[in-house]
Amino acid sequence: MPNNLLTSTTPRPFLRPASAGAELVFAALAERFGDRLSRSQAVRDQHGKDVSYHPAAAPDAVLFAESTEDVSFTVGLCHAHRVPVIAFGTGTSCEGHVAALEGGVCIDLSRMDRILRVGQDDLDCTVQPGVTRKQLNAHLHDSGLFFPIDPGADASIGGMCATRASGTNAVRYGTMRENVLALEVVLADGRVVRTGTRARKSSAGYDLTRLMVGSEGTLGILTEITLKLHPVPETISAAVASFEALKDPVDAVIQIIQLGVPIARVELLDEVQIAAVNSYSKLDLAERPTLFFEFHGSPESVDAQVETVRAVCADHRSGDFEWASTPEARSRMWQARHDIWWATLALRPGSQGFPTDSCVPLSRLTEAVLAAREDVAELNLIAPMCGHVGDGNFHLCVLIDPDDQDEMDRAQELNARLIHRAIAFGGTCTGEHGIGYGKIDFLVEEHGDAVGAMAALKRALDPRGILNPGKILDLARWPDPFM
Amino acid sequence: MPNNLLTSTTPRPFLRPASAGAELVFAALAERFGDRLSRSQAVRDQHGKDVSYHPAAAPDAVLFAESTEDVSFTVGLCHAHRVPVIAFGTGTSCEGHVAALEGGVCIDLSRMDRILRVGQDDLDCTVQPGVTRKQLNAHLHDSGLFFPIDPGADASIGGMCATRASGTNAVRYGTMRENVLALEVVLADGRVVRTGTRARKSSAGYDLTRLMVGSEGTLGILTEITLKLHPVPETISAAVASFEALKDPVDAVIQIIQLGVPIARVELLDEVQIAAVNSYSKLDLAERPTLFFEFHGSPESVDAQVETVRAVCADHRSGDFEWASTPEARSRMWQARHDIWWATLALRPGSQGFPTDSCVPLSRLTEAVLAAREDVAELNLIAPMCGHVGDGNFHLCVLIDPDDQDEMDRAQELNARLIHRAIAFGGTCTGEHGIGYGKIDFLVEEHGDAVGAMAALKRALDPRGILNPGKILDLARWPDPFM
Repeated sequence: MPNNLLTSTTPRPFLRPASAGAELVFAALAERFGDRLSRSQAVRDQHGKDVSYHPAAAPDAVLFAESTEDVSFTVGLCHAHRVPVIAFGTGTSCEGHVAALEGGVCIDLSRMDRILRVGQDDLDCTVQPGVTRKQLNAHLHDSGLFFPIDPGADASIGGMCATRASGTNAVRYGTMRENVLALEVVLADGRVVRTGTRARKSSAGYDLTRLMVGSEGTLGILTEITLKLHPVPETISAAVASFEALKDPVDAVIQIIQLGVPIARVELLDEVQIAAVNSYSKLDLAERPTLFFEFHGSPESVDAQVETVRAVCADHRSGDFEWASTPEARSRMWQARHDIWWATLALRPGSQGFPTDSCVPLSRLTEAVLAAREDVAELNLIAPMCGHVGDGNFHLCVLIDPDDQDEMDRAQELNARLIHRAIAFGGTCTGEHGIGYGKIDFLVEEHGDAVGAMAALKRALDPRGILNPGKILDLARWPDPFM
Repeated sequence: MPNNLLTSTTPRPFLRPASAGAELVFAALAERFGDRLSRSQAVRDQHGKDVSYHPAAAPDAVLFAESTEDVSFTVGLCHAHRVPVIAFGTGTSCEGHVAALEGGVCIDLSRMDRILRVGQDDLDCTVQPGVTRKQLNAHLHDSGLFFPIDPGADASIGGMCATRASGTNAVRYGTMRENVLALEVVLADGRVVRTGTRARKSSAGYDLTRLMVGSEGTLGILTEITLKLHPVPETISAAVASFEALKDPVDAVIQIIQLGVPIARVELLDEVQIAAVNSYSKLDLAERPTLFFEFHGSPESVDAQVETVRAVCADHRSGDFEWASTPEARSRMWQARHDIWWATLALRPGSQGFPTDSCVPLSRLTEAVLAAREDVAELNLIAPMCGHVGDGNFHLCVLIDPDDQDEMDRAQELNARLIHRAIAFGGTCTGEHGIGYGKIDFLVEEHGDAVGAMAALKRALDPRGILNPGKILDLARWPDPFM
């Protein structure tokens, strides 16, 4: 099954409604919201595009929402007139999530950026969807608590829920799946519901919270999010270790996880990635496959973790550990890790980035990583590798010239190979980026008939198909009724 | 809103189908499965009842399934003829989950008890639904891995998924929600789908796994379950500490959690519960409010945890710690904890148990626990308290004489008060037992209109309403179409 799935990244026909109903909706919104509704081309263009190579598609209008009521009113009106609605946070998604494939209204949630409550004693908080992860952690600065989920970008919490995001801390603290306690959601007809409580666990009915997390704006629009927070560890220690060959750090991480070391972060960067990071972030790391570590816990626990990790790494022919002992050094190290995207793009100015996102069971990680590197060489691409290897998740950031169709084809081929292999290994086509409209076919390859069940859920909660149409699944492929 | 929600425990009219269609189904099943289909009264009665006080309702027939194909064939046939299907594991649920309220076929999954695969390197396994938690851990005995979720009973893994169970380890290892990686599910029309992969995380489409976990057999029947496993900790240490007043251990636990101590287990037993345990399990603990602790980690980490916990407990006027230092002593201590249900019933032979299950944010736990104790006194009930207090979840096991309507009414009143209070505190009506047909009204009190969305999902995946009808929600209350 070589290339037939490559159609997943072919832009679908962008069907504009431009109906009388749509014009009525835009007029009613302009009437109610004044200049908070924009129809300027620049604003529309900005809202139809994420950071990826996927073709953009501008919405017909952009509403800057300031409250749940704004969202509810807008969605209800769009439902009545069958006009698409797309939620927008920071536009930092990777699979074309915000492209208005069928036009409609984009609801920009960035002004809903209030932190509504921090439950110091309960280790939780409630925020509006436009709050970004850095904003939240800055707010928590003196509280003794932090929010660990950290995708590369300073994404909005709403967007991170929508894509079921994770990042470098997931190996210890889980992903958005594990860290969202409850949501307020505007459903497709404008109704507002709450999906959970502040209890840490519950067996009360279907898990609507987890159904909404990862639904990419296709089942509802999130207007309030209650998150778990975590105590800032007593001790934090970070280090960098480099290795001779790519196989070694991957094998080392597998063993560290199997030993049950409660490591907080363990990130792999290959030598190409290190070169990019050195150049962009003004570091002078050895240009070899490298692990970035972070350890959290009591001083005694951290010492024990470090001792075990050091021994395992030595068994895998690591060089010495370099310690980032001050908060500033640590912060510089992790900022460099988070700037990988920009560091990579700077390798060949004018390029676009095409990130892959496969995730495999740990026992197949070494095989998957080595095969990926062979693919990159064979396809003659520039594609530094980095990864949340403790979770079996790694990315290649393929540099592409969007005007070079041959290079684009090779990048697509690479992406497809990685995904076919991940699925064959019992893994997934996307560890943390989501499906958007870039991986619709791959979702089918991974889940088969279960996508039919997803389509039935979509129809149940959005019978008119107005919520972010054309994302996650192609309803036309899954006949109604499902059963 | 005092008593109007007490109707939640009123038995609904049990509408038997006894239709020509049903008889056709039973005949076809008998033809195919021979004596694996039982219609004997004793077998039917045994399968309509769980451990709770809820009125039982026997199914019309019981099929002992041995394979996914058996389940798929049976469900498909029942779908065609609109006959109810109820999945059965060990019958140890607490809210009438297995009662065949509208008759139909009970599928007993206890013979599907094979452990299909243990992924030593991936810290996961795949099991059939009839495997029990003790069976799984016995199988893992020499592997260096274990499965932490431990409801009181030796429940089946399938049943634990269905009720989103947890237990004493949830404060460290999470609940079934966090520990199920993927499922094989027979949908309402007999179709078999897989909801996930063996990757530790994924952003691939709607989270069908989490939707099925906690759905109590109303959305599909689980036929294979892939679970996360955890490395057996290097060091395990357990201790018991008693306190003067109930407020003290609860406050101590809140502080321990807030300090970020990665405690593995912390269980509260009040003095009535301790008396019951002493008598039943031949222990001689001081009859005072008591905490059972367990610490997991490296020796250094465990020492550090113990030191912190000891200091916090001393600040809250604890007595000395008694250590269960050998595996045998530890096992005896936790067996006594797990036997609480039977220990409580033995307090007044001939009684039935009525377990409550509220769960609140940690900051409200002391208030909730103290108010519950006042309620017990005021209502003149015998109701020992135990709890997974690190999660904010506590149980009263109310002793009732089912023939004493006044006592039953007082137990219902107690349950309702606890739930109203939990919901008012931002918590949930059930931390780990589920809704069954005992808490249908309370689910509405807790979730409001969101139950309408749940009803829409139920209709989407089970349009003929054959899967465990009358559980979780009352479809008649939520008009179709939802929107």
